Amino acid sequence: MPTHPTAPALKDGDHLAAIDLGSNSFHMIVARYTLGQLRVVDRLRETVRMADGLDGKGGLSKQARERALECLARFGQRIRDIPGGRVRALATNTVRQLSSPQTFIVPAEAALGKPIEVVSGREEARLIYLGVAHAQPPKPGQLRLVIDIGGGSTEFIIGRGMEPIERESLQAGCIASTRRFFPGGKLSKKRWKDALTEIGAEFQQFAVQYRALGWQEALGSSGTHKAIGEICAAMKLTKGAITAEALPQVRDRLLMADNIQDIDLPGLEKDRRPIIAGGVLVLEAAFNALGLQRLMVSKAAMREGILYDMLGRGSDNDPRDLSAASLMQRYGIDEAQAARVEATAMRLFDQVAEAWSLNDDDARQLGWAARLHEIGLAIAHSQYHVHGAYLVENSDIAGFSRQEQQVLAALVRTHRRGVPKTAFDALPDRLLLAAKRKAALLRLAVLLHRAHDPEPIPKLELEASGESLRLILSKKWIESRPLLKADLIGEPEDMAGLGVAFRPFVD
Amino acid sequence: MPTHPTAPALKDGDHLAAIDLGSNSFHMIVARYTLGQLRVVDRLRETVRMADGLDGKGGLSKQARERALECLARFGQRIRDIPGGRVRALATNTVRQLSSPQTFIVPAEAALGKPIEVVSGREEARLIYLGVAHAQPPKPGQLRLVIDIGGGSTEFIIGRGMEPIERESLQAGCIASTRRFFPGGKLSKKRWKDALTEIGAEFQQFAVQYRALGWQEALGSSGTHKAIGEICAAMKLTKGAITAEALPQVRDRLLMADNIQDIDLPGLEKDRRPIIAGGVLVLEAAFNALGLQRLMVSKAAMREGILYDMLGRGSDNDPRDLSAASLMQRYGIDEAQAARVEATAMRLFDQVAEAWSLNDDDARQLGWAARLHEIGLAIAHSQYHVHGAYLVENSDIAGFSRQEQQVLAALVRTHRRGVPKTAFDALPDRLLLAAKRKAALLRLAVLLHRAHDPEPIPKLELEASGESLRLILSKKWIESRPLLKADLIGEPEDMAGLGVAFRPFVD
Repeated sequence: MPTHPTAPALKDGDHLAAIDLGSNSFHMIVARYTLGQLRVVDRLRETVRMADGLDGKGGLSKQARERALECLARFGQRIRDIPGGRVRALATNTVRQLSSPQTFIVPAEAALGKPIEVVSGREEARLIYLGVAHAQPPKPGQLRLVIDIGGGSTEFIIGRGMEPIERESLQAGCIASTRRFFPGGKLSKKRWKDALTEIGAEFQQFAVQYRALGWQEALGSSGTHKAIGEICAAMKLTKGAITAEALPQVRDRLLMADNIQDIDLPGLEKDRRPIIAGGVLVLEAAFNALGLQRLMVSKAAMREGILYDMLGRGSDNDPRDLSAASLMQRYGIDEAQAARVEATAMRLFDQVAEAWSLNDDDARQLGWAARLHEIGLAIAHSQYHVHGAYLVENSDIAGFSRQEQQVLAALVRTHRRGVPKTAFDALPDRLLLAAKRKAALLRLAVLLHRAHDPEPIPKLELEASGESLRLILSKKWIESRPLLKADLIGEPEDMAGLGVAFRPFVD
Repeated sequence: MPTHPTAPALKDGDHLAAIDLGSNSFHMIVARYTLGQLRVVDRLRETVRMADGLDGKGGLSKQARERALECLARFGQRIRDIPGGRVRALATNTVRQLSSPQTFIVPAEAALGKPIEVVSGREEARLIYLGVAHAQPPKPGQLRLVIDIGGGSTEFIIGRGMEPIERESLQAGCIASTRRFFPGGKLSKKRWKDALTEIGAEFQQFAVQYRALGWQEALGSSGTHKAIGEICAAMKLTKGAITAEALPQVRDRLLMADNIQDIDLPGLEKDRRPIIAGGVLVLEAAFNALGLQRLMVSKAAMREGILYDMLGRGSDNDPRDLSAASLMQRYGIDEAQAARVEATAMRLFDQVAEAWSLNDDDARQLGWAARLHEIGLAIAHSQYHVHGAYLVENSDIAGFSRQEQQVLAALVRTHRRGVPKTAFDALPDRLLLAAKRKAALLRLAVLLHRAHDPEPIPKLELEASGESLRLILSKKWIESRPLLKADLIGEPEDMAGLGVAFRPFVD
C-alpha cells in the first residue's frame, strides 16, 4: 500500500537538523544534503545534566530547567532558517520520567522554535543502532551489539546490517546510577559490589536471550564509552578499546578515591568526573551480564540515527510504513477493508486539506490510522475501537514517537460510536485542531465502508469551511443503501464531539 | 502442557446443573451422569423479564430484581444438594448492562446458594452453539448457522461439527427491541420499516463476512424461534420451520394490530405476546441481512451448552486450556519459560493448598496465569504486566467467564513490581483472599525463574500459616545466585501489598 503523499524531495543544498535532548547532554547535528549524501556541517553539544534535576517524584529542578531552555534557545538560533519538516528534536529518558512532560515541552518548544517529541527507550535504541550502523557499516551477515550508556537509561541493541533485531532499554544511566548508588559522592568497594548486584538484577530479563543470540562485534556509542576508552588508552591498557581485562583496572583506579570529587583517572575530562563512577559501574555490570570481552567505541549516536531516519520518513522506505504493515499482520487486520478505508480517507483529505491546513504529515497519519483502525478486533469485537487505541498507544512501534502514537490512538479511539470528551487529552494544544479534523475524515471513510462493500463510491464531494463540513453523495447511489442513509443521520451528533458541524447532502 | 490437578471424575449417579439467567427467562436444567452420558432429569423455566427492568442508565427496577431473586431462591432449593463444582449459573446481556453488576449478583448468589458468573456475548454464543450441536449433531463437514434471539441480545454463530467458527453478538433482543421501537406498544408499518433499517445497520459489521463463509443449514435456538415456528405451523404456512415466504405473512398478520396488546397470532402463547413484535422484527432483519431462506427450530440452547462445557472443564479437553494455548501462540509467549514458571508455581501450590484452602479451580487458574504472565511483552517491554492484564481482561477468550478473566488479569497485573491498591477491585469479596494468595504464589514462581535459567531448583519449601509465608531455599544454591538473593530482599515489601507477610530463608 503506497502512502498517499510523497514528501517534497530533498534538493542539493537543503539542510537537515537532529537534536537529542539527552539526560546528560543536549546534542545538535546539522547536515547538508549533497549529491544524495548527508554531510555534517555543524555539531553542537552542551552539558545540561537534565537528569541531575529530577527530584524522584516526576518534578524537574528550576536550575536544570533553565539550563535546558537556555541551551535550546542557542540551538534554535542556529536552525532558525531550516523548515520544520527538516528538523527533528527528540527527548529521552529524563523527559519520559517527568510526571507532566508538557510543562517542560511547551516552553522548550518555544525556546527551540521547533516541535519536540518524546521517544520510548526502545525507539531510542533503534535510532542509536541506525546512527552507528551508518557511521560504521557492519560486515554483511554479522551480528553486532551496540550499547549506549545515557544519563538516565542504557540501551542495548543487537542488529544485523541496518536492522536492529533486539532492543532493550535499562533504567540505569551514568547520572542516575551515580546519584542512586553513591549519594554524597561517597565511594567504597562495598558500595560498588552491592551496586553491581542490584544493576545486575536488572539484566536478568534479557541477558540470557542476548547471549543465546550472540554477536560478532560489540560497540559502545555514548560519551561514557568514549571517556572510558580514552582512560584505557591513557592508562596504556588498550589503544582505545574497552576490554574485560582493562575495565577492572579502570574501576580499581577509580575506587582509589573515597569521594567522587577526588577521582583521578588519566585522560578523564573534568566535566565528566562527576558522572564517570555511574558510567563505569553500568558498563562493568554489562560486561558481567553479557560476558563481554571487548567493546569498540563508536563516535556516532542517536543524533546521527535521527538524521538518517528523517531521510527515510516520507519516502518509499518510511520505517513507519513497515511498522504499520507488521502490526496489520500480527493482529490479522482485514487488508482489503483497510485499503478501501484508506483510499476513501485520502479522497476526502485531498478535498479539504487546503481549507483545513492539513499537510503531508497529516495525510500520512490519516493513512496509518486507516490501516490500523480495526486492530482492536484481535482483542474483542465489543468496544474494539477502545482496545485498538490501547494497542496503538502502548505498543512498541518502530519509527513512531510517543506523540505520533498518541495522535494515532486518538484517531482509532474516535473512528466509531460517540466521541468521549477525554479522547484527545494526551495531545498538546498545537496538535489538537488538526487531530480532530483528521478524526472527522477517518470517521467518514469508515462510515462509508461499514458494509465492507467492495464497490467504489461514485460521487464523493467534501467541503470544509471553518469547522463546518458538507458531504455530498450521489442520490441514486445512496438510495440503494438504506443502512448507510440511517448511519449518516446519526453522524452529525457524534461528529459534534469533534467540534465539527457535519451535514450530509445528496445530489 | 497438562494442567496440574484433574477434577474429581464424575461417577455414575452424580448430578450437574446449569442455570441461564437470561434477559427474558431464567432456565435451569439438571442432569444425571449415567454411563458416560448426561440424562436430563429436570427442567425449570420462569419468565422473569429482567430486561424489562433496565432503566437505560444501568439500573434495575425493584420489581425485576425481586422477580429474579424469588426465581433464584426456588431454583436454589432444587439444587441444594449438588456440590458447587457441579453447578454453573451464568448471567448474560441484562446483567452485562448493569452499571454495578455486583449489587445484583451478590444477593442473587445468596438466593441461589451458588456462585453466579457473567459471560460475554461471544462466550454466550459459543455455549449456545455447543448446546445445539450436542442436541442435534451437525452432518460431518457441513457448516451450520445458529441464531439465538434473547431478551436483550441476539447471538449469531457459524460452526462446523462441535466447533464454532464465527461468533457475533448483536445488541438487539426481543424485549429490548420491543421497548426501543414500539414505545407504548404502538405498532405501524412505518415504525416497522424504520426499525428494520436501524437494526439492519447493526448487521453491517458481519453480514458480508457471514454470507461469504456461508452455511448448509440454519437453526434458531430460542423461545422466540420456537414461538414463531409454532405460529408458522398454526397459520399452516410451514410444518414448523421459519421460511423467507412465511415470515412476512406472520409480520403482516402481526401488524394488523395497532397495539401490542391486540396482537392476534395463531399459536402464540399469551405470555409471549408482549415481546413477540421485537422478536419477529429482529428475525426479519436477520433474514434480510443474511439472505436466509429457511430456519429450523432447535429446542436446545445455552443451558445445554453450559452442561456439556462443564463435562469438559477440568478434563483433558478443558476448553480453557485450548484458549490459553491459542493466546500463547498468537502473542508469541516463550513457552519454555512459561512451563518453568508453571511447574514451580504448582510445586509451591501443593505445599500450601491445604493451609490456604485453595482448591482444584485455584490450581488451574494459577496454571493459566503462569502460562500467560508474559503475554504483555507482545505490546511492549515497559510495563508489560499492565499490558498483559489489559489483554487478559479484555480479550474474547473462549471458555472463560468474565470473572475468571478478571482473576487472571489480577494475577498477571501483580506478578512483578509493586502491587497497586486497585489491582483486585474488579473481584467480588468472596474471591479476594484466594486471588491474593494465588498472586503471591505466582510472584514467587516468576521471581525464582527471572533469570530464565533452565536449571531446576533443588530445595523449595513453602509454609503458609494465615497470611504468613515462609520460603526455604538451599543455601548452596542461592549463594551462587546473587541476583536472586537481591530480588528476594525486596520481595517482602511488594508482597505486603497482597496482605501476605513473606519471609525467605536459606537452609
